[in-house]
Formats: sequence, C-alpha cells, structure tokens
Amino acid sequence: MELGSATVGVIGGTGPQGRGLAFRWARAGLRVIIGSRDAARAGATAAELADLAGVRTVTGAANAECAAEADLVLVAVPWEGHAATVAGLRAPLAGKIVIDCVNPIGFDKQGPYPLQVTEGSAAQQAAILLPDSVVTAAFHHVSAVLLADSSLDKIDTDVLVLGDDRDAVGVVTELAAAIPGVRGIYGGRLRNAGQVEALTANLIAINRRYSAHAGIRITDV
Amino acid sequence: MELGSATVGVIGGTGPQGRGLAFRWARAGLRVIIGSRDAARAGATAAELADLAGVRTVTGAANAECAAEADLVLVAVPWEGHAATVAGLRAPLAGKIVIDCVNPIGFDKQGPYPLQVTEGSAAQQAAILLPDSVVTAAFHHVSAVLLADSSLDKIDTDVLVLGDDRDAVGVVTELAAAIPGVRGIYGGRLRNAGQVEALTANLIAINRRYSAHAGIRITDV
Repeated sequence: MELGSATVGVIGGTGPQGRGLAFRWARAGLRVIIGSRDAARAGATAAELADLAGVRTVTGAANAECAAEADLVLVAVPWEGHAATVAGLRAPLAGKIVIDCVNPIGFDKQGPYPLQVTEGSAAQQAAILLPDSVVTAAFHHVSAVLLADSSLDKIDTDVLVLGDDRDAVGVVTELAAAIPGVRGIYGGRLRNAGQVEALTANLIAINRRYSAHAGIRITDV
Repeated sequence: MELGSATVGVIGGTGPQGRGLAFRWARAGLRVIIGSRDAARAGATAAELADLAGVRTVTGAANAECAAEADLVLVAVPWEGHAATVAGLRAPLAGKIVIDCVNPIGFDKQGPYPLQVTEGSAAQQAAILLPDSVVTAAFHHVSAVLLADSSLDKIDTDVLVLGDDRDAVGVVTELAAAIPGVRGIYGGRLRNAGQVEALTANLIAINRRYSAHAGIRITDV
C-alpha cells in the first residue's frame, strides 16, 4: 500500500485520541474519514477539523461506512465498547489493515491500573474478532492533549507498532512517521501488545506526579 | 536514608544485570556488596569489578550475608529462582528497601513473551514474600551489555521506579540517577509493575529487529 494515496478511517474518531490522530494525519495531507456511531456527530467533528489551519480532506461517516471506504482503519473506541464495535465491523474491515490503539485501563482511589483482558490485549481481541483483517496495534501512548494542540508542530514521542504481518507493520510505521516529530518503531508481535496497552496506566501515573503529558522514546534505535 | 553513605547489596550480583548495575554504582562511589548463592563466586565477581578503573569498594558475600549487611538491596536473580531466593531472605531483608528488577520473560520460536505471574508481577510476589520490607521495582530495562561496557561513561535511558512508599521511591530514584546519563522517574504503584517487567519482551524484540540495546526515555518529564 502507498500511504500517500491511502484513506485513513478512524473508528471512534469523535473521542479525544481518535480526533487528535485524525487531526494530525489530515494536517500531514492524508485523506481521513472520521467514524462514529452517530454519523451526524462524525460530520460535526470532521467539519471542526476541516476548519483548522492546514487540514485538508476530512469527512465524517457512520462507523460501518467509514470502515468500508477507508484503506486502513484505526480503532479508537472506549474499551467498554471495543468488542461489540469491532465485531460489528467484520465485513467492512475484511482485507484491510486495522490498527488498534485501545487501552483497557481502570481507575480506583489508588489511580490507574490495567484491566485483565481474556484474549491478552485489546489488539488480540480485535484479531480474534476480525479474522479477515490484518490487525496491528499502535498509537497507545500519544497524548490526546498534545495531538489536539494545533500550536504544536511536532509531537516528541515514538510509537510502538506491534503486529505479526511485516508489511502491515511497515505501513503503520509510516503512518506514525507521517506525524512530525514521531517515529514508528517495531515493538514486537501482537501477543506482546498487552503490556504496551497496560503501560498507559504508568504514563497516567507519571502525568499525575509530574504534571506532564508523558510519552516514550526508544533509545539506541 | 542518605544514599551517599548507603551500602547497596545486589542479590544475584554475578549475573549480567546485577553485575552491570553493581559496576555502575561502585564506579559512582557507592559501597556495593555482590551477593551470590556461592560466596566464592561473589568474591570473584567483586574482585573483577574492583580491578576496573574507577571502581572503589566492592566486596562479595553469600546472599544472606549480603542482605544482612546492605542498607538497600537489589534483587537481580533469574525469574526461575525468584520466589525461593526472596522467601529465604525475609529475615535479613526486614526493615530494608528492596528493589526488584526481575523480568518474567519466556522465549519460544516466535521470540520473547511475558510469563503469567500469579501475584501480578515479580515485584508483587516479592512484596508478598517480604512483608517486613519496603519493596520497590526498578531497573528492568537497562541493557546489561551497555552497563558492562566500561568505555561508556553514560547510559542513555530512564529508569521507571515503582512503589507504594514515597520515601523509598525517592531513594531508588536517587540510586538510578547515581548512574551518569540515567534519570529515575516515578512510574506508578507496585501494582503497575507487571507491564513494566513485561515490556522487556518488547525491548528484546526491538533489539533483534534493529540490532540495538534499546532503553526507554519518558518525554515531557
């Protein structure tokens, strides 16, 4: 796949993480479709992003239409709705690269902690529910606050890209690198996605302690 | 505790991770005791480190003696021996800060993957087995190869320090920062140690793909 001519769909694109990534990809010149359960909400978010300086082609659609029209698709829904949303998109996502960025995290009085996932991770759950797609995992740790801040030209972080299909990992790595400042780094097979998702709990703890929007960089790469 | 006057014990100090950290702490001017099941092996490793340029006071002892004499103690044994070794040191470790750096990682034909730990993590297992100690978790991702390379003056990495006792986390953070180039960063409560240990599988996958000795840096902190 040539990334430059690809259309990126963002399932759950009205939420902070999906919206932020959609904004950055659109600003990088990619064609982006915002997906939502509610097509009208998706259209409203797309219109907001299209108004922002430098953003080219962003449109909105219901999730199923978004999945059907896009060439590669980010799943950025809340964990609570993950299994149902993903399972419902099996047909339109068939044959496509799917990128799961969902973090199953809980909160209690002691702060954030990772939720147990029967399949091992949200990404592995998606892979089981989408046997006709190529599922990867990436973009777990990119701060939605920084993504949304249009005064920031660059995001200072690496994106770990996990997956068992080397070509798909390559495309998603390019998609990460399309955001200025970001590197896409291969981060292991999909079975190693659980700890990457769970590490979000640590980053939230770091953000609270240091009043930061923490990300990670891999050294010596 | 004043770190400058503290003696650091390294249980499993003849293995690559423990040896490498002992070397760096000794070179930073800290008093270090190498612990091993075999006191003679501990003494031999200590003598090797003492010969290296710039290293001051390193001695060797059996693990129990190392634990008894040190003020704060790193546990750096293989995961296979973790529970038995830690449980056997409950008395000499009482009242002390314990730092667990053990990574429960398995390997098969597809590469590295995290082992399931009933207690959630090696560090939580240690906390259960050492109810009279203050258990923290840190130093999971520091490359043993880089630590051992005496031509390197600095190690380019952050160390995530996890724990529920803020004073202990502070001491361990200082211990990390005693190694030139390293920052100690609070990484969350001990219940969030599992994914930090497991992330070692991702770093091993990264090392294999990129021929690197990968570490992590936290951005925006």
